[in-house]
Amino acid sequence: MNFEKYLKDKKIIIDKALDEFLPTEEKSPSNIHKAMRYSVFSGGKRLRPILTLATAELLGEEIETVLNTACGIELIHTFSLIHDDLPCIDNDDFRRGKPSNHKVFGEAMALLAGDALLVSGFEFIVKNAEVKGIKKRAILKVIKEISYYIGTENMLGGQVEDINPENKNITKKDLYNMYMKKTAALICASIRAGAILSGANQRQLKALARYGENIGVAFQIVDDMLDIMQDQREMKKSTYPQKYGINESKIEAERLIKEAKKSLKIFNNKAEVLDNLADYIISREK
Amino acid sequence: MNFEKYLKDKKIIIDKALDEFLPTEEKSPSNIHKAMRYSVFSGGKRLRPILTLATAELLGEEIETVLNTACGIELIHTFSLIHDDLPCIDNDDFRRGKPSNHKVFGEAMALLAGDALLVSGFEFIVKNAEVKGIKKRAILKVIKEISYYIGTENMLGGQVEDINPENKNITKKDLYNMYMKKTAALICASIRAGAILSGANQRQLKALARYGENIGVAFQIVDDMLDIMQDQREMKKSTYPQKYGINESKIEAERLIKEAKKSLKIFNNKAEVLDNLADYIISREK
Repeated sequence: MNFEKYLKDKKIIIDKALDEFLPTEEKSPSNIHKAMRYSVFSGGKRLRPILTLATAELLGEEIETVLNTACGIELIHTFSLIHDDLPCIDNDDFRRGKPSNHKVFGEAMALLAGDALLVSGFEFIVKNAEVKGIKKRAILKVIKEISYYIGTENMLGGQVEDINPENKNITKKDLYNMYMKKTAALICASIRAGAILSGANQRQLKALARYGENIGVAFQIVDDMLDIMQDQREMKKSTYPQKYGINESKIEAERLIKEAKKSLKIFNNKAEVLDNLADYIISREK
Repeated sequence: MNFEKYLKDKKIIIDKALDEFLPTEEKSPSNIHKAMRYSVFSGGKRLRPILTLATAELLGEEIETVLNTACGIELIHTFSLIHDDLPCIDNDDFRRGKPSNHKVFGEAMALLAGDALLVSGFEFIVKNAEVKGIKKRAILKVIKEISYYIGTENMLGGQVEDINPENKNITKKDLYNMYMKKTAALICASIRAGAILSGANQRQLKALARYGENIGVAFQIVDDMLDIMQDQREMKKSTYPQKYGINESKIEAERLIKEAKKSLKIFNNKAEVLDNLADYIISREK
């Protein structure tokens, strides 16, 4: 398969759906809509929604069946980035090479744009119920799962630990748990959402969740490696590469990707896209 | 009826459900759970969830049918208060006579606790689907409505206008629209949610929405009057009493309450509680 083309094609579909769903910049109050769109369309790779679509395809579903949910998750991801960059959290002036949301629109607007994207994310997922053939029960299960994966036991909990100064003497296990919460949780949720809406059985769901957890943690290790190598972030935080060096981080990320690909074995040779996505995560250079 | 006892009894039921749903303070990461609970249990009147319960009762439903949704809305309301108080928005050091969330837990934790309460709010509403006899379609409709009423067309949009410096020369109509978005929208959503889950027909839904809009705007006018009279807030913002004086504000609030009560006529004499709640809004002194 032409994997680069696959990614590009899916990104186009996702971007179009996001553009159609989000209020236009002209719509009042236009400043918050501008702020929301600024971060949503700032060069994201759309990894999470692509994982949702790829999972649906693997299970024999049309991507239209899960597209709204995939995009809703991308909006929720964008909310988390905007709030993470705020001065009171990471105080990052740049995101994906561009000024971060609060640098352009001010702190108040960035805060509210983040809030609005979180709300829009849920709204987009609920809209998925209008798709023909979708079971309402499945949508409710997806909302429940996503709430769990972004709540205080997972994504937001990881963020709390991330800003917690007690983190200074954390062990490898602590780091792994933090990465699991902070990053792998939403990646896992993207895959599980696609699986639930496509009627996956328990065995499939479990295998896909393990895949998601492993690529999710690997993703964050790679992210932190890239930060160190590109010197883009103050090294005030405990990260895997900061604690164990670039070389050991690379080995650990490769091990996780191998584990992830192992989980896909139950799908025989049908999981080529997810297999490629796992490799993509470790090979990316930005 | 003994209306004071009614309010007290309902508040006890709501507080118990909130306490059982929210993670305990001991649960890790405990600092965010402490921050969430601090604001949820800081003396709120529970007006919004009581409106949801009272609407269900008016339509002949048990309060258990709508209790989770009622509480979910209260969590969403609490999220909005925490974020509104943050330095970058209203910079309020006090809320309900106590130090505001960020004064106790710091800005980062207050931001994340607000985010987590918004997520928990949706989670609580989804949990309502587990109640026997509840239609899944009704829950999805409620989530869709609540997303709309707290989104950029309503609550968050009102907040944007509130911080927008262009607001300095606003007309009476602008003020009314801002109050509608900022405050009446979520009050209206509380009532509509109760109505939808109780199987209200279109005529009932419309009447209840009008009731909600009117008491919601009246609520905000009274709030601003109390702020001026108690001198608790800097008068940097355009409010009804600041622009038209206490006396005219009182007359306008009374007119809105009268309008609200008029909408209840279609329920003949069965809407005693909502009738009392309308009077309560205008007579409250804190």
